[in-house]
Formats: sequence, structure tokens, C-alpha cells
Amino acid sequence: MHTFNELVKLFADKFATDHFPKYPATLYEPGDYFLSIGGKRIRPVMCLMGNELFGDLSPDVFQVATAIELFHNFTLIHDDIMDAASLRRGMVTVHKKYGENTALLSGDVMLIRAYEYLGRCNGTHLQEILASFNQTAREVCEGQQLDMDFEKQDHVSMEAYIHMISLKTSVLLAASLEMGAILGGASLHNRKHLYEFGKNLGIAFQIQDDYLDAFGDPGKFGKDVGGDIRQNKKTFLMLHTLAAANPQQLNTLKELIHSNPPDKVQQVLVIYKACNVDAWANELKEKYLQTAMKHLDDIAVLSTRKSALMELASFLIQRDY
Amino acid sequence: MHTFNELVKLFADKFATDHFPKYPATLYEPGDYFLSIGGKRIRPVMCLMGNELFGDLSPDVFQVATAIELFHNFTLIHDDIMDAASLRRGMVTVHKKYGENTALLSGDVMLIRAYEYLGRCNGTHLQEILASFNQTAREVCEGQQLDMDFEKQDHVSMEAYIHMISLKTSVLLAASLEMGAILGGASLHNRKHLYEFGKNLGIAFQIQDDYLDAFGDPGKFGKDVGGDIRQNKKTFLMLHTLAAANPQQLNTLKELIHSNPPDKVQQVLVIYKACNVDAWANELKEKYLQTAMKHLDDIAVLSTRKSALMELASFLIQRDY
Repeated sequence: MHTFNELVKLFADKFATDHFPKYPATLYEPGDYFLSIGGKRIRPVMCLMGNELFGDLSPDVFQVATAIELFHNFTLIHDDIMDAASLRRGMVTVHKKYGENTALLSGDVMLIRAYEYLGRCNGTHLQEILASFNQTAREVCEGQQLDMDFEKQDHVSMEAYIHMISLKTSVLLAASLEMGAILGGASLHNRKHLYEFGKNLGIAFQIQDDYLDAFGDPGKFGKDVGGDIRQNKKTFLMLHTLAAANPQQLNTLKELIHSNPPDKVQQVLVIYKACNVDAWANELKEKYLQTAMKHLDDIAVLSTRKSALMELASFLIQRDY
Repeated sequence: MHTFNELVKLFADKFATDHFPKYPATLYEPGDYFLSIGGKRIRPVMCLMGNELFGDLSPDVFQVATAIELFHNFTLIHDDIMDAASLRRGMVTVHKKYGENTALLSGDVMLIRAYEYLGRCNGTHLQEILASFNQTAREVCEGQQLDMDFEKQDHVSMEAYIHMISLKTSVLLAASLEMGAILGGASLHNRKHLYEFGKNLGIAFQIQDDYLDAFGDPGKFGKDVGGDIRQNKKTFLMLHTLAAANPQQLNTLKELIHSNPPDKVQQVLVIYKACNVDAWANELKEKYLQTAMKHLDDIAVLSTRKSALMELASFLIQRDY
């Protein structure tokens, strides 16, 4: 058994190879460039963890883990086109560097490449792996579409927002664990609980991410604090505040959203705090985290095997930014 | 055994069903719309033909045929974005009707949906089918990228052009037949010859398509005759003429390409004829057709089983437009 950090290292070493042919360079170089930007590679590591929960690492697990990471990068390349984003992790996005057409096609071919890695799996589990991968991939697209739809809507319910977030980010975390479990020969019972662990952990993580964007320590939080507020993004915090604010707070909030004054972040934070949105967010995060841990408890393997997943949860959630 | 037209009808009936969930409609409706535009559905029918060459239709063949047709439509949606095309078969393209972001994402989800159909295949042949599908899908992207690259180049060799055309259009025709053959339990020998039949037939078809664009009867040829010339497209005819023309013809041709006079089509056709490009194109088409038929001959099944494929070749090539 490996610790979380050992698995991170193990995957990073395996992934540090060429994933594309050399020709035509105009098609494949943008993909190589984007992968070189890096990232936490958290999803493939979760696949390894889901696998090791049930025994030694399976020979095919690196194929599936690689497919997951390529899929994730495909979504980022295409999302950056859709969001007209110029930078990703401080580096120029693919469509800004190579043009939209090439970014579109490089994304397409990265998705196909992901399926090529999947296709290298031994026949035994291929059908189940493919079913999990396909459904998840389609759900991620649904999440992205709902996110774009919500941006144009005045009112989005908390329930609809959680559904969107779950599709856009949590299902891939959940399925990464699940695909590892499938390769590990897990029972349906264990697979399902592992999936739900990942899904609830993902939602807790997203709540925390929204929280840190507003209340995080700028020195510790990697991103630009208040960025969501400046961009009028619908977040857990904003949606809750819109629902919980009194008429006066609501008016001020709507005015701030439309007028975009220089001190907007500070003013919105005052309303957030007046509505106790920070305490509410922590409570909600805790609720999802507890649900996740309950599902982890329900997985029928020796609890010593679960230590890496506990480390993962700590890594993702109990960061004291 | 079915005739070519019976298989066309059989697939059309099976394909006339909902291919997407209803929700979110913003994601899936554009795909339904695009499929409703129709098309010849030649590729899935080729999959059925490749399958029936070796016995009765396999239960999984409609899953694979549907996956092929969805893949083809995915490429069209994304190609239309890249080409900034407003119309396809006289109907508004997806990105013009729903916006580029939605077209991008609807294309992505159509590709994933194609893999969902593939994933419904019985485990026995899944790995081989997936390998053929994946490689072909990636090659089609390579073809599209090379096509975009060539548009920016002054000189493109005939060899490079044939390679591009082969990737962009022929390999999917070839693989459609091949995947049918895999499901039919064909030997590797038979599979390879069937693949080469489809690939060479596809190139012959493309040469004919370029020929008809220049020399076709406007009343019979569905498209706008001379369209390739007006758009300065690199075609078999143009590339050969650029190589075969004398210095004076070459000068005139280059001037026409740059100045775009109203009678450009007529003037270019005069040079085409002076260079005997019509006879050359017919000869080249015949060469690829003969190679295709040779590979069909080499497939070790009763020649009576090959009748539908002979009909296909006639349908694609001996059209007297």
C-alpha cells in the first residue's frame, strides 16, 4: 500500500512520457504544451487510490488513470475556449497561443487519445470501465452547459446549483475512484459507496473553494481573493446571500452587482458577513464532508486500507488557508 | 442477404429514434437538430455491408453503425465551426443557430454518445472495435488539421494531398467496413483487404467529387459547379494543373487566383482542359477504383456475398452526372 503522496509521485513518473505522435505537429504540439502546464493530477491519483483500496495496483490502472487525466485536460482546453480565458495557471491558454480552430481540434484529439488509453485495458473490465467513463464524460458536458445557462439566468435555485456543480466537478472525482475500484474487482456495494464518497467530497471541496475565494487569506490562497465577487459569479455564497438577505441588503447587493464600484469586494463581504454566510458555508461543507465519510465507513474493506483516502479528504478539505 | 438499398432502409429505420436525453435541452437539442438535417448515412450502411459479407447481421452491428454515424456528425459540427460555414445541406449550421460555445459542447457530447453506443457491444469484439474506431477517429482529426495547414501553404505536393484526403475522408469509410467485418468474425486477411477496398474507393470518390465540381452537369450535380475554383480550394485538379501547366498557363492561373474576376471559373476551366486535367483525373480515379476492386477480389468469401459492395462502388463511382 502507498500513501497519498507516494501515489502522486508514482503517477507523475508514469505520466511523464509522450502522449501523442509527433506528426502532424500542428495538431499534437498544442496538447503537449497544455499538459506541460501541469496540474495536481488529483483525478488519476484518485483512480490509483480507488484501485489500491481493494488490493495491489492492477496492471491496467495506469492506462485508466492516464485516460482520466487526458479527459480532464480536454475539458479544460475546450472550457477555456468557451470562457474566452487567456491564462491557465499563469500560462497562455491553447486557443490564445495557437488559435481557436487548433484548440478545438487538439481538444478533440485529446479526448480520442483518452479513449485509446482506455482501449488498452484488458477485456475483463473494459465494458464496465467504458460505461463509467462515458456516463461521467457526458455528465461533465451537461455540467458545463448548465453552468453557461445559469450565467444568463437571474435566479438559480441552490438545488439546481448543487446539481450543476456536482456534474461539472464532482462526478469525475467520484468516477475516478470508481474506475479504480472496478479494476480492483470491487463489489457493486463497495463501488457505489466509494462513488458517493467522491461525489460528496467533491461538493464539500467546491463549497470550500467558494468560501476561500471570499474569506481566504490572500497570502495562503493561491487565487485572486474576491475574484468570484468581482466577476459576479454565481457561487454557493452568492446564491445563499440572495436568498437570505433582507430587502435592504438585497437592494444593495443588486446595485453592487450592476454598478461594479472599486470597493465592490469589501462591500459584498460586509453583506455576506451580515447574512452569516461564512458560518452557513462551513456548516454546509461539514454536512457534505460527513456524508462522504459515512460512505467511506460503509465500504467493506479493512479500515487500514482506507488511510490514503482519509489523507485525500484532509488534503482537499482541512487546508487551513 | 440484403441489397445496398435494403440496408440503407434498414439503417434509416433503426436510426430514426432519440439519440440523446431530453435534459438539459440546451445541450442536446442542437444535436437532435443537426441529425434531423439528414445525410446519406453511407458510413453506417458500409458497416452493415462489411458485417453481412461474412454472415447474417450481428446483433451489435446497429450499435457500432450508430456510433459511426454519430462520430461523423460530430466531425461535421466541429468542422462547420472551423470553416465558419453558415449552411449545411441548405440548413443553418449548429454554431450559427445556437452559438459557437453550444456547438462546441454539443459536438463533444455527440462524440461521447458515439462511444456510449460502442460500449453497448458484447465484450468479445469490444477491444478490437474500440481500437479500430479510436485510430480512425484520431486520423480524421489529423486529416482536418492537415487540410487547415495546407490552406495556408503555397505549395502542396500531390502525395501530401492524397495522404490528407485519405485521412480526412477515406479512413472512416474503410474503418466502417472493417468494424462490420470484426463483428462478423472476419479473418485478419479479409479485414485488411476490406479496409483497403474502402480506402481506395474513398480516394476514387474524392477525385470524382473534385472532377464533378469542375466538369459536372449543373443540372445533375447537386452542388454549385465551380465552387472549388471560386474558393481557390486545393483540389486534385488544381494541384495537378499547377504542376503540369506551362509557364504562361501558370502565370494566368496564379493571376486568376489572386484577382478573382467574375469569369474566373470559365477561364480556369480553359486552362484545366488545355492541361488535359479531365482525362488525367479520370485515369487517376480509375487507378484507385481498380486497386479497390483488386482488394475486393482478394477477400476470401463467395463472390455472391460481394454483390452489395459492388453496388456500393457503382453507387459511389459510376454516377453519370
